[in-house]
Amino acid sequence: MSEGNLLYAQSGGVTAVINTTAAAVIETARKQKKIGRVLAAKNGIIGVLREELIDTGAESAEAIHALRHTPGGAFGSCRFKLKSMDEHRPQYERLIDVFRAHDIRWFLYNGGNDSADTSNKLSQIAEAMGYPLRCIGVPKTVDNDLVITDCCPGFGSVAKYTAVSILEASLDVASMHESSTKVFIMEVMGRHAGWIAAAAGLAGNRANEAPHLILFPEVVFDEEKFLAKVKATVESVGWCSIVVSEGVKNTEGKFLSEVGTRDAFGHAQLGGVAPMLADLVKRKLGYKYHWALPDYLQRSARHIASRTDFEQAYAVGKAAVEYAVKGMNAVMPVIKRKSQNPYVWTVEPAALANIANHEKKMPPSFIRADGYGITAAARKYLQPLIEGEAPPPYRPDGLPDYVQLKNKLLKQKLPKYVISDK
Amino acid sequence: MSEGNLLYAQSGGVTAVINTTAAAVIETARKQKKIGRVLAAKNGIIGVLREELIDTGAESAEAIHALRHTPGGAFGSCRFKLKSMDEHRPQYERLIDVFRAHDIRWFLYNGGNDSADTSNKLSQIAEAMGYPLRCIGVPKTVDNDLVITDCCPGFGSVAKYTAVSILEASLDVASMHESSTKVFIMEVMGRHAGWIAAAAGLAGNRANEAPHLILFPEVVFDEEKFLAKVKATVESVGWCSIVVSEGVKNTEGKFLSEVGTRDAFGHAQLGGVAPMLADLVKRKLGYKYHWALPDYLQRSARHIASRTDFEQAYAVGKAAVEYAVKGMNAVMPVIKRKSQNPYVWTVEPAALANIANHEKKMPPSFIRADGYGITAAARKYLQPLIEGEAPPPYRPDGLPDYVQLKNKLLKQKLPKYVISDK
Repeated sequence: MSEGNLLYAQSGGVTAVINTTAAAVIETARKQKKIGRVLAAKNGIIGVLREELIDTGAESAEAIHALRHTPGGAFGSCRFKLKSMDEHRPQYERLIDVFRAHDIRWFLYNGGNDSADTSNKLSQIAEAMGYPLRCIGVPKTVDNDLVITDCCPGFGSVAKYTAVSILEASLDVASMHESSTKVFIMEVMGRHAGWIAAAAGLAGNRANEAPHLILFPEVVFDEEKFLAKVKATVESVGWCSIVVSEGVKNTEGKFLSEVGTRDAFGHAQLGGVAPMLADLVKRKLGYKYHWALPDYLQRSARHIASRTDFEQAYAVGKAAVEYAVKGMNAVMPVIKRKSQNPYVWTVEPAALANIANHEKKMPPSFIRADGYGITAAARKYLQPLIEGEAPPPYRPDGLPDYVQLKNKLLKQKLPKYVISDK
Repeated sequence: MSEGNLLYAQSGGVTAVINTTAAAVIETARKQKKIGRVLAAKNGIIGVLREELIDTGAESAEAIHALRHTPGGAFGSCRFKLKSMDEHRPQYERLIDVFRAHDIRWFLYNGGNDSADTSNKLSQIAEAMGYPLRCIGVPKTVDNDLVITDCCPGFGSVAKYTAVSILEASLDVASMHESSTKVFIMEVMGRHAGWIAAAAGLAGNRANEAPHLILFPEVVFDEEKFLAKVKATVESVGWCSIVVSEGVKNTEGKFLSEVGTRDAFGHAQLGGVAPMLADLVKRKLGYKYHWALPDYLQRSARHIASRTDFEQAYAVGKAAVEYAVKGMNAVMPVIKRKSQNPYVWTVEPAALANIANHEKKMPPSFIRADGYGITAAARKYLQPLIEGEAPPPYRPDGLPDYVQLKNKLLKQKLPKYVISDK
């Protein structure tokens, strides 16, 4: 006998494996007798506020299974932070109204810090309002910035993409450097922490192996030292491969990408610290350069997902449902590293209160003394996260066989709600 | 009994599968009794001029086999165009001197138009000088701009990378558009022809499928029409995914990437038509944007190579050696499409004289009437080229198992030569 329905929502920037977690949630929930319908919010928490709820029961088992290897957020995600309860209590009450109208007893929120905070607050307000709700946070973020968990699903795949991409592009530059490109710069995501930039360091380890320089947001940019390093590398290796985090800042704490240049109309530069550094290298050292900025390609590259990441993304989704039906509340399934070699991990519950609004920084011990590379400690931590492959199936036409869901909306039961402070 | 040695050289921008061709050349040549040593030029034709020749006999069969799945140019490539024979005959004579000194009777030059021209001229000057040399051009270019051949090895893989990347990134944008990015722009290579941009069109076919707009170098950029298309797409689909070729030009025939903006120092913009268009969209339409510029990542992405491309790259290398030992001269193995459905192709010899200095343009019939997409004819041509996968083996640490050759140089026999007009 069903005790009510379960609602799953995706939040924040999507990843190559957030749908893997979604598949795990739906597949696991479908087996639970306690759970009636498995619903998903259209475009995350915005869809809950608007009472735009998707009935995943309309999707076949095959379609849900195919979600495991489909990037993006299948139900839509959003960048929308609820205000504090003091500031905007009606918004929280609206959420509870929607839960009540659709007999939603379990809410699984798949996101990062903000989502953990929202889930935690929702569990409190539900209790205060006397509505029986279990809130589970489900970890997801390419930024790898959640505390307590050893790593965040989504990060391992962007890490693998980054390491493979700089390895491949560096082989290209190595073969062209004699008469063409001498310096290659790839910009990666990571506005506040250098986790993704650090992962690029896995591409090479021995002396003179690419990437030769990594620029972290944790290390203040020193133009003179940077140029000297580039020059020394080109003179000894013949060429230089550089990975730069979008979050690199100058001595005044400003993003390099924002202070560098202005366009013809006086607008701040169109984005990108890579082109700015490339220009600097050209002006000061005269080297021919190329630069790349993969942007969304890096976090949606399901075709080069890490198997570790894929398995962890599935495991947290499965655990979240299991915790929910056990009656656990305001928790998140987190990944614990049980053993380094061989790499063994498990999933455990952790209180949302200890995760919400905290940010995991990259340990200073992960950055090499000269500031331009990673240490053995970083390598030890990062290495297992990119291990193994989990390729999607391919269609006969050569494209990955990604699924498109029907996303059939439930009939609305409540008055229309306008999100006033969006 | 060996009749002499074979020299293989790589030229121009490298690809994901130029080493596949190199592996085919070496593996096929090793089986030929007529061929003594199989040599490779270090950094292409520059290495021949400098008498920097690599003895591939120092490499194990396993290493050569691993070349098949290693991107970049294993022996080094170069951007170096020999002047005309009238202008610089001594350079051609130097090449013949090096061939003579190392008993090189077969020269296989793996490149594009320029290389075909060089091979053709070399065969002529060798004959004029009474030196017995067979010159074979081996096709390679991501630009797909060689005539006679149905397609160029290297193109199919960059085409697949491009289609897969825009498919994945578009799934990302689709899931974020409600509250975040509305317009995504990916810039691809193709300074003179829109082959790579066209390949992105394979990612979607049905109405409203991404990419919604493709900007070709063949179509003059019309700002007003472009903005209207973007606006209409965002209003009907909710978001807009755009692929732009680096070679898009304005009404005055200038590259958009060069005229758009200048930096704070008055330098021409740091490169990239994608950021320029993104800025335009933001200023004129107010949409939040993201843009990507994969640059070398697209042509070195061996991990997502097309199997068709991989097999063709191997086939032309094998055929080149077979033609060489048969005594053919001044020819190139080209790909012929024998059947469309099922896709069947074969390799045939074509005269270098008919290939050198010609450039294959994309047929106007491949571009949709509105100028922003591909036609059924383009789809029919492009589709088979991205079919099938040819993933590299992976190491236990999660990285592709790319090989690094020893590249042992032969002892020099001639006086040092300085390339005067490099």
